Amino acid sequence: MSKIEISPEIAPFPKPIALVGSMVGGRPNFITVAWFNRLNRSPNIWGVAISKKKYTLEGIKQHGSFSVNLPSADLVEKTDYCGLYSGRNVDKSVLFNIFYGKLENAPMIRECPFCVECSVYDFIKLPASILVLGEVQHAYAEERCMTDDDLDPKKINPFVFTKPGDKYWALGEAIGDAWSVGKHLAE
Amino acid sequence: MSKIEISPEIAPFPKPIALVGSMVGGRPNFITVAWFNRLNRSPNIWGVAISKKKYTLEGIKQHGSFSVNLPSADLVEKTDYCGLYSGRNVDKSVLFNIFYGKLENAPMIRECPFCVECSVYDFIKLPASILVLGEVQHAYAEERCMTDDDLDPKKINPFVFTKPGDKYWALGEAIGDAWSVGKHLAE
Repeated sequence: MSKIEISPEIAPFPKPIALVGSMVGGRPNFITVAWFNRLNRSPNIWGVAISKKKYTLEGIKQHGSFSVNLPSADLVEKTDYCGLYSGRNVDKSVLFNIFYGKLENAPMIRECPFCVECSVYDFIKLPASILVLGEVQHAYAEERCMTDDDLDPKKINPFVFTKPGDKYWALGEAIGDAWSVGKHLAE
Repeated sequence: MSKIEISPEIAPFPKPIALVGSMVGGRPNFITVAWFNRLNRSPNIWGVAISKKKYTLEGIKQHGSFSVNLPSADLVEKTDYCGLYSGRNVDKSVLFNIFYGKLENAPMIRECPFCVECSVYDFIKLPASILVLGEVQHAYAEERCMTDDDLDPKKINPFVFTKPGDKYWALGEAIGDAWSVGKHLAE
């Protein structure tokens, strides 16, 4: 095992993929994001880093709410499209069946198996991005994607993103149970 | 497609998995994290959310540097172990071959195909976590995991984590090229 030094302009991978929904310029808009994750357990805070000039930020700042929609692999083309084109120039609201939950101005995508509504918890300014911190207020799932009252990853059929290489990947085989498969090393 | 409301105590998924290396109490320590991602392109800032009481935070706060190591699937047991037990109680430095780059106090794992050294950019206080913002200063990769001078996801063989279900998953098949597969929808 010998390491070589490579460019530090690198991202972690694989990265999750989601569609962030907001109300901008009077219509629902969706942006594809890969720079997001949960950041705090209780309250349940998710962080989404969005480049400062993105149209989506205008809507989130104006309304204080947004949605996060996790697409399944059959939505890979529409997900890619939402990352390619700005809502300033195209109407992305026509791509999906849109529904609303309990928050205003947090449009969600019915085709996505799993959606959450967030209220803005804080905005963290970074040099080129705004890290939007959202508190998850409500969550919705397709009933067909549940097993024993829990979301079932295989039924949801999510995908992830890698860069370099710029590819989307389906989930592969399960390789171990978390908080379990490493226990024997303590013996 | 009909949605049901589920508990909002939910995380996005799948999540990436990494081992964060720090120097704590005079020895290298490694913690498994899933709440991390890139947050800013230039400078290249990654964010890692770590629960406030974790041993790792003591080392990062003291030294201002840490590493992020991306494990391949053959390291799933050791990765799980590093999330199960605290460095306060077990010596996790014996699990790996450790190497150092150019920063002090940022121990890296030779067995991981891809490692970066970070200097602390900022700490963001959240209710139960500290979001550690690190600027990637140097990156290292296994030469055998490169194709045409870029990291090759299939050679690295990374894995991801899902909760609920608490499982680790290998990468599956490529399902599309990013910034490409959705272009035809614009026509």
